[in-house]
Amino acid sequence: MSDPQVITFRPSADQYAWTFGGAAPVARVRTPAVLEVFTEDCFAGRVRSETDLVSEVCEFPYLNPQTGPFWIEGAEPGDTLAVHFISIEPARDWGASTTVPLFGALSATHATALLHDPLPELVWLWQFDTAKGLCRFTARRGDFTTDLPIEPMHGTVGVAPANLEVRSALVPDAFGGNMDTPEMRAGVTCYLGVNVEGALFSLGDGHARQGEGETCGVAVECAMNTVLAVDLIKGSPCAWPRLESDTHLMSAGSARPLEDAFRIAALDLVQWLAADYGLDQLDAYQLATQAIEAPLANVCDPNYTSVVKMPKQYLPAADPMRGAHARLRELARAYRGG
Amino acid sequence: MSDPQVITFRPSADQYAWTFGGAAPVARVRTPAVLEVFTEDCFAGRVRSETDLVSEVCEFPYLNPQTGPFWIEGAEPGDTLAVHFISIEPARDWGASTTVPLFGALSATHATALLHDPLPELVWLWQFDTAKGLCRFTARRGDFTTDLPIEPMHGTVGVAPANLEVRSALVPDAFGGNMDTPEMRAGVTCYLGVNVEGALFSLGDGHARQGEGETCGVAVECAMNTVLAVDLIKGSPCAWPRLESDTHLMSAGSARPLEDAFRIAALDLVQWLAADYGLDQLDAYQLATQAIEAPLANVCDPNYTSVVKMPKQYLPAADPMRGAHARLRELARAYRGG
Amino acid sequence: MSDPQVITFRPSADQYAWTFGGAAPVARVRTPAVLEVFTEDCFAGRVRSETDLVSEVCEFPYLNPQTGPFWIEGAEPGDTLAVHFISIEPARDWGASTTVPLFGALSATHATALLHDPLPELVWLWQFDTAKGLCRFTARRGDFTTDLPIEPMHGTVGVAPANLEVRSALVPDAFGGNMDTPEMRAGVTCYLGVNVEGALFSLGDGHARQGEGETCGVAVECAMNTVLAVDLIKGSPCAWPRLESDTHLMSAGSARPLEDAFRIAALDLVQWLAADYGLDQLDAYQLATQAIEAPLANVCDPNYTSVVKMPKQYLPAADPMRGAHARLRELARAYRGG
Amino acid sequence: MSDPQVITFRPSADQYAWTFGGAAPVARVRTPAVLEVFTEDCFAGRVRSETDLVSEVCEFPYLNPQTGPFWIEGAEPGDTLAVHFISIEPARDWGASTTVPLFGALSATHATALLHDPLPELVWLWQFDTAKGLCRFTARRGDFTTDLPIEPMHGTVGVAPANLEVRSALVPDAFGGNMDTPEMRAGVTCYLGVNVEGALFSLGDGHARQGEGETCGVAVECAMNTVLAVDLIKGSPCAWPRLESDTHLMSAGSARPLEDAFRIAALDLVQWLAADYGLDQLDAYQLATQAIEAPLANVCDPNYTSVVKMPKQYLPAADPMRGAHARLRELARAYRGG
Repeated sequence: MSDPQVITFRPSADQYAWTFGGAAPVARVRTPAVLEVFTEDCFAGRVRSETDLVSEVCEFPYLNPQTGPFWIEGAEPGDTLAVHFISIEPARDWGASTTVPLFGALSATHATALLHDPLPELVWLWQFDTAKGLCRFTARRGDFTTDLPIEPMHGTVGVAPANLEVRSALVPDAFGGNMDTPEMRAGVTCYLGVNVEGALFSLGDGHARQGEGETCGVAVECAMNTVLAVDLIKGSPCAWPRLESDTHLMSAGSARPLEDAFRIAALDLVQWLAADYGLDQLDAYQLATQAIEAPLANVCDPNYTSVVKMPKQYLPAADPMRGAHARLRELARAYRGG
Repeated sequence: MSDPQVITFRPSADQYAWTFGGAAPVARVRTPAVLEVFTEDCFAGRVRSETDLVSEVCEFPYLNPQTGPFWIEGAEPGDTLAVHFISIEPARDWGASTTVPLFGALSATHATALLHDPLPELVWLWQFDTAKGLCRFTARRGDFTTDLPIEPMHGTVGVAPANLEVRSALVPDAFGGNMDTPEMRAGVTCYLGVNVEGALFSLGDGHARQGEGETCGVAVECAMNTVLAVDLIKGSPCAWPRLESDTHLMSAGSARPLEDAFRIAALDLVQWLAADYGLDQLDAYQLATQAIEAPLANVCDPNYTSVVKMPKQYLPAADPMRGAHARLRELARAYRGG
Repeated sequence: MSDPQVITFRPSADQYAWTFGGAAPVARVRTPAVLEVFTEDCFAGRVRSETDLVSEVCEFPYLNPQTGPFWIEGAEPGDTLAVHFISIEPARDWGASTTVPLFGALSATHATALLHDPLPELVWLWQFDTAKGLCRFTARRGDFTTDLPIEPMHGTVGVAPANLEVRSALVPDAFGGNMDTPEMRAGVTCYLGVNVEGALFSLGDGHARQGEGETCGVAVECAMNTVLAVDLIKGSPCAWPRLESDTHLMSAGSARPLEDAFRIAALDLVQWLAADYGLDQLDAYQLATQAIEAPLANVCDPNYTSVVKMPKQYLPAADPMRGAHARLRELARAYRGG
Repeated sequence: MSDPQVITFRPSADQYAWTFGGAAPVARVRTPAVLEVFTEDCFAGRVRSETDLVSEVCEFPYLNPQTGPFWIEGAEPGDTLAVHFISIEPARDWGASTTVPLFGALSATHATALLHDPLPELVWLWQFDTAKGLCRFTARRGDFTTDLPIEPMHGTVGVAPANLEVRSALVPDAFGGNMDTPEMRAGVTCYLGVNVEGALFSLGDGHARQGEGETCGVAVECAMNTVLAVDLIKGSPCAWPRLESDTHLMSAGSARPLEDAFRIAALDLVQWLAADYGLDQLDAYQLATQAIEAPLANVCDPNYTSVVKMPKQYLPAADPMRGAHARLRELARAYRGG
């Protein structure tokens, strides 16, 4: 692997993208490369106090600003983009969460359309103790406070969709996008099938932390300084987003109803085990049945996202995804060492 | 707490129950009590080799045999039964799993009714190394083997349903039943709302281990020797099954589609936090959004089951469910000490 | 066909059944037979004015009283019961409808569990002009009135379930039950697979009329005087409820999510066309795709019900279900002639 | 109303659009206007014999070619486009239908992802007897034929989506699109909320006929010669597609799971009755519950579509949607008279 290109990119206010596909690239990337980027929070930075209600301060559809898209040189449909998160660090010492009218798992929504009035709109500001790695919940209707670990992640990571489509940055689907899984953390490699020339990769929607399922629809939203290592796997498609850590293989399905999201993820994992580990499909089905974890990602977005995780320790030796995770791990070490 | 009654019960072949509700009690229990029971596997012990296909050796609807039901003295609708798992130990040195025609998350089923032929029916026998706490997967269509930890649990724990119903032991719902969550392990207390006089508690469907989601529909099925501590919380209803460990509060929702199972679990947890921890509902909604884990239980049974887990460490001091878990923990210690 | 037995049965207040399965038979029926029965409305007759709120006057689970069950002599698992509706006539000159807290397609429910407060509880009394065959809607929050045709039907028609179960009379499933389809009208034959000896057939939940989907969860509920012709098809099972009119074949699937209800109904119809009309399954799939109507039945009950209707005029000559509908039509003519 | 502009447009092979949004307009329309257009079939005309398998002759994503988009002068977000179908006539004397691998209500799909192999791929050619208005089904695996009425309709009618999106012509959603409802026939007015300047209206996917639900995913697909009257309702938004005939109001919801599609349609209808007919929302909920028909549109596309139909005869006098249907009816009469 040659010395990677290092690209630093901090978008100006008018440089964000609001969709996957359909936006002009902000930079061209020759892989392998390291990207040092800033991402704004999902509110485009407009929720800064408890009186900043989304319905008042935000301007639809200008939510979930994307840093990018990056044109990946040589990327073509049929290739897979490998994106390794070297580090994800909150760019501010606070994060914001909120209820949003007709949004969230425990609310009537535009899709689960009911006669109820919206739930009250309420903002919670979470203060960070960066030294201790903690973020503080402060009750709005009581005097309780409690500290949770900061566990930074990106809700939104994706490429341009297939089928000539342009999708809102709020949508997760086969192209990745707004999957909102806490698994998208530093140390993890995310694989995304390339659908258009140049791939058009972007990311955003940093979360200081998030519970699984993202129940109310909004995490502890926070701008991030993020470093990524990016590589291209030529001639090897990837139907649905996959993640790989040092310990786990993961597949992420996004669909409604939620069982379809799970089916997509579980079938993809079974096919991954068959393709890269030489297991028969039914054997892989059996082994996955007994071995996987299945942490929900989101049950609030236009598609719900379900993740399945397979511990590598139970698998035969192999180089999944042509060894991209190991290679990017190495590149990350070199970058940090440099 | 007075000295607990200890009841030992190993059913004879004709003593199993096949339903929740509608079966005559096998014993009367004066709480607090300790139950030492044997449970047969979900196949009623009929799958013993790779040639024992469920469709040939099992007799529908005689699946998922229940040990019980136990009549809990004094239990009435509006009470809650607290069942603490002191120990769950495989009663054999092997377990069985299998595909079942038109069953499982990645198969057409009787409900997701399609024109496809059923998938092939295949049995896997898992050999246990009890000393090491491992169970061995052996590929049926290849020569791969791998060892996974034995993590014993009960798929099925429940009481008689409400609404005059009798439900198959294969069904999970508000009465508990076939929830198939790996969280139902030793050290955990399960809370079940009482729907009929005497509660009619039973359990079965031991799993040597199970992945989250129970993808193919069948875990590493195994007869179990299980010890439970049982208590009754008078005058305190429980709408959906709850679980409590030393570290977590958990709610288990069962429904279709899967998002409804999640909604039930998440709403129940929010209401639990409001009732027992004094949080405002919207504050609880926010805190849960950022703090919970959401491991799927099953995506194969007549209702799907979704579990949400809240770490206690982030909560104010409280005695959830009137302190039943702590009390039963104490009782378990006394029992083991005795 | 020998002279049919005629059984007249009007339940006393304590003779209603509240479940499918689990209730003692009220009469034994030797088929072919004619049943002349009275059915109480779904509220057990307790909603009689605009101030009779379900939450106050009804006693759960004593809803949807069933007239029956009738023991069908000779009925065994593997047979099919054929029930032909000769006439369905409102027994009162008014009907009642209402919103019910946490029930209905446009409300949060116990399954679609959300943080919203219940919708307001409101009762509408519909006055009937029996001579004109009209029922009158009177707005509760305005002065609008309008007349709709009385189109009497039974929401609930079923037999005892399989799998040793007893189900609430509010549930529709493979055994029939609370399907709430407007297709269940006079002139139609309903086929129900027999699951237990004696079949244990019952019916109730008369509707003076109902829109498709039964959106708010409650039709124009009304006691009924109903005449049925009943016959038994020996040795011919029926997996899901089927209906037959002079012009249509219909299959009724009940499940959640609603697409599964549709899949069940559509697959059953395809299999029916293959079995009784000699069509290849894929040919039947194609023909049904272009020919069926798909009117929703209910989107509010514990399972949703979807009906598919195939016009007979497009099919080859055949005696579907062994000609039971034609035979029962004849019996109905003889009964009316007598 | 001034003399309407008449625009005739027959796309050349390279003039079709494959998306809603994102395509350059083919013509500018000053409303009121009449459009005389040709639409190609969903296969882009490539399935012409029983050996033309979609998987071989079609080129993804070039399916469902759209005639348009038409730029509607003066159309802005917040307006509603009214499109009245004056006539829809098959442009050929045959139509084609087919199974498509991993597509259709009774098949595993890319979303309901299962381990089954795809169903067989089979093409049916339907011959038309235009004089008699009949199309002939010919069994592929038997010798049965049968004639069904030709009932021409458009599966796909839509405008550019909101939220900066571009969607495949195979998708139905709030912007209309591939709703696949047989209600989209001559004599009907379709209302579509405008999301972008110019509206960018297009249509395609003619069906000689289609059953409700479009079970196998493919209707009797046929090129069409279609005449439309188009008008603009300024300053009046329309959240979801509505249809109006001389006799019915209809709302069309598209979502997954299918109950959400129904909820969207039913809520929209209730809100329509409240807004244009002065009914209280709960009164409208009650009246709709008893009065609507609920014919499924499709249970196969990326979103499922559910339609609810309210007979106007039960409603107070009103000019729904500002009387657009009546006006366009008049324009259609003038056009035909001319």
